[in-house]
Amino acid sequence: MHINGQYFQTIWADWHQSELMIIDQKKLPFQINIKKLKSFNDSFQAIANMEVRGAPLIGVTAAYGLWLALNEFHNDSDFRDDFLLACKTMKKARPTAVNLAFGVDKVCDAVNGVEDIARARELAFQCAELLKSEEIACSEAIGEFGCELIEQIWIEKGRKTVNILTHCNAGWLACIDWGTALAPVYKAHLKGIPVHVWVDETRPRNQGSKLTAFELHHEGINHTVIVDNAGGHLMQHGMVDMVIVGSDRTTRSGDVCNKIGTYLKALAAFDNKIPFYVALPTSSIDLTIKNGAEEIPIETRHDAEVRYAEGENGKTLLVPEYSPVVNHGFDVTPARLVTSLITERGICPASEDGILSLFAVKH
Amino acid sequence: MHINGQYFQTIWADWHQSELMIIDQKKLPFQINIKKLKSFNDSFQAIANMEVRGAPLIGVTAAYGLWLALNEFHNDSDFRDDFLLACKTMKKARPTAVNLAFGVDKVCDAVNGVEDIARARELAFQCAELLKSEEIACSEAIGEFGCELIEQIWIEKGRKTVNILTHCNAGWLACIDWGTALAPVYKAHLKGIPVHVWVDETRPRNQGSKLTAFELHHEGINHTVIVDNAGGHLMQHGMVDMVIVGSDRTTRSGDVCNKIGTYLKALAAFDNKIPFYVALPTSSIDLTIKNGAEEIPIETRHDAEVRYAEGENGKTLLVPEYSPVVNHGFDVTPARLVTSLITERGICPASEDGILSLFAVKH
Repeated sequence: MHINGQYFQTIWADWHQSELMIIDQKKLPFQINIKKLKSFNDSFQAIANMEVRGAPLIGVTAAYGLWLALNEFHNDSDFRDDFLLACKTMKKARPTAVNLAFGVDKVCDAVNGVEDIARARELAFQCAELLKSEEIACSEAIGEFGCELIEQIWIEKGRKTVNILTHCNAGWLACIDWGTALAPVYKAHLKGIPVHVWVDETRPRNQGSKLTAFELHHEGINHTVIVDNAGGHLMQHGMVDMVIVGSDRTTRSGDVCNKIGTYLKALAAFDNKIPFYVALPTSSIDLTIKNGAEEIPIETRHDAEVRYAEGENGKTLLVPEYSPVVNHGFDVTPARLVTSLITERGICPASEDGILSLFAVKH
Repeated sequence: MHINGQYFQTIWADWHQSELMIIDQKKLPFQINIKKLKSFNDSFQAIANMEVRGAPLIGVTAAYGLWLALNEFHNDSDFRDDFLLACKTMKKARPTAVNLAFGVDKVCDAVNGVEDIARARELAFQCAELLKSEEIACSEAIGEFGCELIEQIWIEKGRKTVNILTHCNAGWLACIDWGTALAPVYKAHLKGIPVHVWVDETRPRNQGSKLTAFELHHEGINHTVIVDNAGGHLMQHGMVDMVIVGSDRTTRSGDVCNKIGTYLKALAAFDNKIPFYVALPTSSIDLTIKNGAEEIPIETRHDAEVRYAEGENGKTLLVPEYSPVVNHGFDVTPARLVTSLITERGICPASEDGILSLFAVKH
């Protein structure tokens, strides 16, 4: 997508210079800083320090990071032990793991059995590039399917602006391009459908006000930032036509684990008969579990995220040290509150039958 | 209640010095600053600048402010025009008005027809003191009734700690003493019932993390501050036994207008079969309206509250200027989601019959 009118992806590599470029997302939206990663350690740190974030982007960064590792090994004949160690290390860069491990394993498999380091470098690079392309195609397909839903609402409401509420950031900054929850919004905008997005600020890390609003601004899409408390009131007053959120993990039965607070918006949408959609790549569906609230462990993150607010003028203390704080990163929205899932394979009900029907068709 | 072990009310007057003392709530919790108000204008500014806030406290401050006005008039024979002008001016100190106008009218009535300014001063002072005492008694009665509900849950769960979630600040700082939503918590604590309070930070002004947490800390009550997004997750996991919130205005049918975000917590409580109580003085029930969501106008407040976070280290910008922001101050929780109302006249269902039954009994 675009920043100041210029086309960007969240990550790109230069084969000849052995360099990886990322947008340093810790500095957004207040500074737009392109950072060069020149070594395995640079890429590891970029993931660990959250200069890149979002499951698909982490996976692709890890894959390129292993290519950078291969570029650093000088002993041609004996690189494979070092390489396996790099793979193992990279998997520890963030605790969430699923896409990170996926990206690492892809490159590891591609290089497996190759004895010539020059060839291994080529294969690792090609593998990372392919993974990146697949992520883009996946996001774009989600966008196309989701756009049909927006268009339908637009027609139903007499071609008036469609008001969409979203929570957290599930846009192109979390992926490579397009995004998940925001991909349908971008597609609708390109098609000339008038949209307006209500952006939940998404405490404690404010990915909504910092990243989603940034993305929408630079695509020229109408939007308004609200506190996380506001969505229910807007829905009661007919100011929201649909909700689209992303997902970190979805169970076989359609329960959706996503950023803390998603469940509250799903309840409000249900209470006001507003469709609640979840946009996700099918790779994030965990077919091994059924009951999300019972089976998905919820990460407890650092107190400081709640205790402080961090903005352009630095950090400011909100909660004095005498008060304990707890910081759960995610919650689970039961399938019964989800209207449909929007995936790269199509749209389906948030149910076991719905999800299995996606996988029944060959792609 | 207490600050650093010392007993405090939010406001107190010294007849002999013609002074009014308040806790400057804009500085809390980072500075505990007792401010002297020596003139009508001082008291007007304290209300307008939100150094005092909370409907009952505003009403009492306004009443004392008129006593300070009388102390300033030197022309004994001709004070009544000046006094009526002061009354009119005071009503404009804040837009919300109901309790503010109530306090002003009380003093105005008390002084009505009195020609001796010395006597008028005595009557105005006595009126303000009575209003203050009535507010304290009202809060304490709410506390006693609400405590019974906490005790019942405590017994039902085998005398284990009762976990109570609250939103915003409806504690003694919003009143004179005790509070509304927090009064039952204080009474339970005094009775030896173990309680733990989940404190919603309550963006955008963070009255939860700044005022509610401060109050609970100084009363020695276990509490944990959470982001507004977290309550639903806690309820799903059995970590909340009951919700108690305050109310700015409640309709004849039991719809509750309160701080933005209250409705989302009510939905989550209902979905998880957790009792949701609203603690309020019956003076805040508006018998003239029935449908809260349709009939109660919702104040839109200044953008800056959402755009910035304000803490001990000053303000920090969260939402860049290119993004529009909207800041609705309140929302309406439909009566169907409210388990009961806790008032100074007793506990009743959130329904027209329930509310009218409170007024049928003489007190």
